[in-house]
Amino acid sequence: MNPLSSEDRGFTLGDGVFDTALALNGAVIARHAHVTRLLAAAGAIGIAIEGARIEAAIDAALPPTPAILRTTLTRGTAARGLWPASAGEPTLVVATAPWGPALLGQPARLITATGRRNEFSPTANLKALGYLDHILAAREAARAAVDDALILNTQGRVACTTIANVFALMDDRLVTPPLSEGCLPGVMRALVLEIAPSLGLEVAEVPLTREALAGAQAVFATNSLRFIRRITELDGASLGTGGAALDALEQALFAQAAAECGIDPRQA
Amino acid sequence: MNPLSSEDRGFTLGDGVFDTALALNGAVIARHAHVTRLLAAAGAIGIAIEGARIEAAIDAALPPTPAILRTTLTRGTAARGLWPASAGEPTLVVATAPWGPALLGQPARLITATGRRNEFSPTANLKALGYLDHILAAREAARAAVDDALILNTQGRVACTTIANVFALMDDRLVTPPLSEGCLPGVMRALVLEIAPSLGLEVAEVPLTREALAGAQAVFATNSLRFIRRITELDGASLGTGGAALDALEQALFAQAAAECGIDPRQA
Repeated sequence: MNPLSSEDRGFTLGDGVFDTALALNGAVIARHAHVTRLLAAAGAIGIAIEGARIEAAIDAALPPTPAILRTTLTRGTAARGLWPASAGEPTLVVATAPWGPALLGQPARLITATGRRNEFSPTANLKALGYLDHILAAREAARAAVDDALILNTQGRVACTTIANVFALMDDRLVTPPLSEGCLPGVMRALVLEIAPSLGLEVAEVPLTREALAGAQAVFATNSLRFIRRITELDGASLGTGGAALDALEQALFAQAAAECGIDPRQA
Repeated sequence: MNPLSSEDRGFTLGDGVFDTALALNGAVIARHAHVTRLLAAAGAIGIAIEGARIEAAIDAALPPTPAILRTTLTRGTAARGLWPASAGEPTLVVATAPWGPALLGQPARLITATGRRNEFSPTANLKALGYLDHILAAREAARAAVDDALILNTQGRVACTTIANVFALMDDRLVTPPLSEGCLPGVMRALVLEIAPSLGLEVAEVPLTREALAGAQAVFATNSLRFIRRITELDGASLGTGGAALDALEQALFAQAAAECGIDPRQA
């Protein structure tokens, strides 16, 4: 727990970006993809930082035990003004929390959140600090005693959940909304899109309606901590659980993680 | 500059709200309205805090000199999870910066920002910490060498600027977008709506298009630090500057501030 200035623009204005990754055996899964995405997001909002500084901060924080790695990067402190004429050193904080395989294989029931995600925002595809809308969607889910909330974009189409990208298996094809629908470029999302074809699963990035999910063979959420999480219920209605294709995909993702970290996540 | 935990949810997730007010002679202008709005926003996102704690923090921070008062309230630290099962004490920080009357009476040239404000967001009417979209709009304005940016909502209608509400004088009537258009419930906006009728100016909250601004007698921005700021240009085209009604409104706002603080802002 580092002390931080209360004038840090990450604190006062949500002026920063972050990344959440999983580390096993002292190695970050898909490390290059995580660091690359964080650097791209920093560049997009005009925070200048060397990749080497991020890499060193991760190295310094990495525990040998299974860990959630949270990397936060902000514009630091600056002169007054939303777009400051000058800013000091960016603030970089890498925090860790324990991870356990109990997070894997938990199916999820979802509701649809009331609020909408803004696909017309300049930060729609950036993992920016301002997560309050998703926090309030998570509150709706908690109050409904379900596990997560589906978030639609302003056109009423599927964007994401509060913490994950969304995929559907439809006509034996894996579909997920394109980034233009307002979702984050999830690292696990990209891995799924990359690996699925090698398993004979065609993939497509196409807009998805809530109704299409209801008719899908299976629906699942992806993120770096839970890999694939099957969504079994949406707003009280059961969803398809069409199994073998997803099982194979999950195995392939675990195998890739094991190849990187020397341990299967299920045994970590 | 208070030290802050890097685990504070204001820093990690933008999980909080804030207020910006002007203090002259050791008194906050429209103090009750500012504190009431902050408490309402805190309540809306589920942060429990006593008004007395906020009042005491403001009292402790108030300088006798003209000052910008920035009050930041976050959920503090909490267990992992977007919607935490439990949270500790909220974090409350009141910071001050010098203010001078040079901020008054500066006309502004604006561009229209590329990104859109989300009127379908559960935080659209809350002064939440996540200001990155407005920061990026301010960057666009800086790059265009103008003073601020007009932000439209997802329907393409006027929401606000990066730091202010927007009013137009049309057919001798003052109009401003209703909150349902996605703007903040500005304290100065409310003051204008309250005072204008006593000056013989009819007021109305109605949706506004960018094109309507182009045809208005005058367009201006309101916030607590600049009171009324005339907008003289939008995307390179001059706007109306229809004067006497705005002059009277400005005088009335300064007079009200003087009644509260014992000094006219122009002489502070």
